[in-house]
Amino acid sequence: MATPNDPAIRSFVPVAGDSHFPIQNLPFGVFSRSSCGGPRVGVAIGDFVLDLKVLAEAYLLKGKVLEPDFFRRQQDLNEFMGRGPAARLEVRRLISDLLRQDAPTLRDNGALREHALIPRAEVRMHLPARIENYTDFYSSKEHATNVGIMMRGPQNALMPNWLHLPVAYHGRASSVVISGTDIPRPHGQTKADDAPTPAFGPSRNLDFELEMGFFVGPGNELGRPVPIGQAADHIFGMVLVNDWSARDIQKWEYQPLGPFLAKNFATSISPWVVTLDALEPFRIAGPKQDPEPLPYLRSSGNWAYDVQLEVWLQTAKTSTPERISASNCKYLYWSICQQLAHHTINGCNLRPGDLLASGTISGPTPESFGSMLELAWKGTKPFALSSGETRAFLQDGDRVTITGWCQGDGYRVGFGEVTGKILPALAC
Amino acid sequence: MATPNDPAIRSFVPVAGDSHFPIQNLPFGVFSRSSCGGPRVGVAIGDFVLDLKVLAEAYLLKGKVLEPDFFRRQQDLNEFMGRGPAARLEVRRLISDLLRQDAPTLRDNGALREHALIPRAEVRMHLPARIENYTDFYSSKEHATNVGIMMRGPQNALMPNWLHLPVAYHGRASSVVISGTDIPRPHGQTKADDAPTPAFGPSRNLDFELEMGFFVGPGNELGRPVPIGQAADHIFGMVLVNDWSARDIQKWEYQPLGPFLAKNFATSISPWVVTLDALEPFRIAGPKQDPEPLPYLRSSGNWAYDVQLEVWLQTAKTSTPERISASNCKYLYWSICQQLAHHTINGCNLRPGDLLASGTISGPTPESFGSMLELAWKGTKPFALSSGETRAFLQDGDRVTITGWCQGDGYRVGFGEVTGKILPALAC
Repeated sequence: MATPNDPAIRSFVPVAGDSHFPIQNLPFGVFSRSSCGGPRVGVAIGDFVLDLKVLAEAYLLKGKVLEPDFFRRQQDLNEFMGRGPAARLEVRRLISDLLRQDAPTLRDNGALREHALIPRAEVRMHLPARIENYTDFYSSKEHATNVGIMMRGPQNALMPNWLHLPVAYHGRASSVVISGTDIPRPHGQTKADDAPTPAFGPSRNLDFELEMGFFVGPGNELGRPVPIGQAADHIFGMVLVNDWSARDIQKWEYQPLGPFLAKNFATSISPWVVTLDALEPFRIAGPKQDPEPLPYLRSSGNWAYDVQLEVWLQTAKTSTPERISASNCKYLYWSICQQLAHHTINGCNLRPGDLLASGTISGPTPESFGSMLELAWKGTKPFALSSGETRAFLQDGDRVTITGWCQGDGYRVGFGEVTGKILPALAC
Repeated sequence: MATPNDPAIRSFVPVAGDSHFPIQNLPFGVFSRSSCGGPRVGVAIGDFVLDLKVLAEAYLLKGKVLEPDFFRRQQDLNEFMGRGPAARLEVRRLISDLLRQDAPTLRDNGALREHALIPRAEVRMHLPARIENYTDFYSSKEHATNVGIMMRGPQNALMPNWLHLPVAYHGRASSVVISGTDIPRPHGQTKADDAPTPAFGPSRNLDFELEMGFFVGPGNELGRPVPIGQAADHIFGMVLVNDWSARDIQKWEYQPLGPFLAKNFATSISPWVVTLDALEPFRIAGPKQDPEPLPYLRSSGNWAYDVQLEVWLQTAKTSTPERISASNCKYLYWSICQQLAHHTINGCNLRPGDLLASGTISGPTPESFGSMLELAWKGTKPFALSSGETRAFLQDGDRVTITGWCQGDGYRVGFGEVTGKILPALAC
């Protein structure tokens, strides 16, 4: 029998060739619609959401790992994430079997289908999990190098530790928001190089950061590191991340303890969590690591993901977005398994639903840089838009949309998008 | 009628003169005991815990703000914290009135008293709240100066931003643990100054940090800063904090994004949350702030707290602890109201149960330094213990206990203690 990843299988639900959500994807998310009560778990298929609560109520999710009524109770993905790969693979198989072209159960039951398959345009998406811990890495060598050159010159671009460990810091969990949330321009302290004292006001150097993130599946006990060979079993799936940044606030505040208010006003994520299972066919070799990392960071196999990433900008004066960056997840120097193994090597405990993001993903060419800071080189090289406008940093009314997908042979396994619009600073 | 803070009132529960928990304190915590089911909310009085679930079930918590059965349902303090000062003041008043020497309701009902008042020695304490966000400040000028001198010399000890804003970073919420939890020595990467490459192994420079922290009461909406004049209404109460630190790991990893694995293996807190109401009589003027901070950080009134703090060390070879530091919360340069106002000025949302810690609290004299890093001056001046041992950093078997109290006229409003013992590194 075909596996859920088989490129040949098709669903009875119509799926366009460039859709991000063919039957080979089946990403999980949390949604609601006004007529149907509170949030529940769904799976994206074509332009529809498959309601797992409805399937559970119809006794169509009978497996050996999860209780058949499991998804009647779930309002977020935390508990499902915590059940691990066996539960995820089972549900993925059950749903794939229900959605196949040749499977009559759902296809031929009009009343059930109408309940279970809801047009995506009619639902509201929520955060996929209660995120109690959010960590942001700094895993793109190109990004770290670019920022290092701007700060310290080309001779000392990478810090001495950078090639030895995946640098990271804790971000703010409470201000992770779902795609579509507007982002008011934050206030803060900034200090011009030639000013004697800091000033207060709305940030003038507002930026996006093109990132990807993963959700933790089963956690680990405090004091018990996860060996790198088991790291993938603790990862549920991935999303797109825009880690909004106020560069002028960051510059003044970040020494010596790292970014704080420059980042914690908002971090946006895409709503559909693409499982490691769906991404399996798109694993490739990552960049060669030289020097070889310490043993606890050494893994075998390919742990980079070939995910094409794009950033689109639409200004208040334009009616269509314009692509301003094209990067790829495969450029990341440190893999998600290395990130997770490093995070826990001191015994730090991860929990189901924790979010670990990659840091800005920049590629080797200027077109592939993942932030305005790099695209306009610290404001020194504002870039032109087709509207005739120029940008060094984000202006009020600018909408940033990040999209990403893996290109298969005749189909895509995609992430949808994460989008957000900059609003003028609120009165303070 | 006397207020709950009146030094003259006494409880029918015996309270020693040096007890941290007289009727003037009434701190809130979460406890369980094997015979009584799951965690519930309690209040410390003398050597007892008053069980608020039992009081609610006996209809003895009838007020105007909270539902009478509120504490039947609570397994942590988050929801109570979120209800704000009016609910807190009401419950405080109701409990004070029940515990007074001249109040017969509980005093003269033996069966009820036996259920409601449990010896503290018989209960297990839990984290007072589900902590979803933990922020650590760096608010002691003496500590920041000491560390700055060690790192950069006396000319550039304080970073340029330090006097203008309360520097902070996000810590790890999942690894905040309750007092009494043992702390295995963490593994990690370190690099000696003269080594060409980093090494891996157990941290050799393990440290404590003497801190205090506060729990957020009602939160704020994302995008809506809390003005400093309203900050206190968003603060529930305070605890003692020991922010364990691996200095060798920190030194190698922290550039440029701040401490990560050096801190997130464990942060210990004391179990009893002392309310701002109980601390009210001990508010004093803090250090003069020069330069005057920006308007959003200016507050009127006294917002420092006169809390005497002590650190005690007991080694594996000794049978009694020895005091190694005596500091005071009043030394903090940035007040808790300034911390909260700064944290939200960019719109960052705080939630009930979030923990904000002060950073290491060092005083002006060497005896008042709040970390081994400072007490033994980066390992260069190991200090002698009365047992004949010396210490530069913590050794396996060392137990660190932090205690703190406000000294009233004939009574103390105290925090109990936060304690933890260093275990040898686990096999990795």
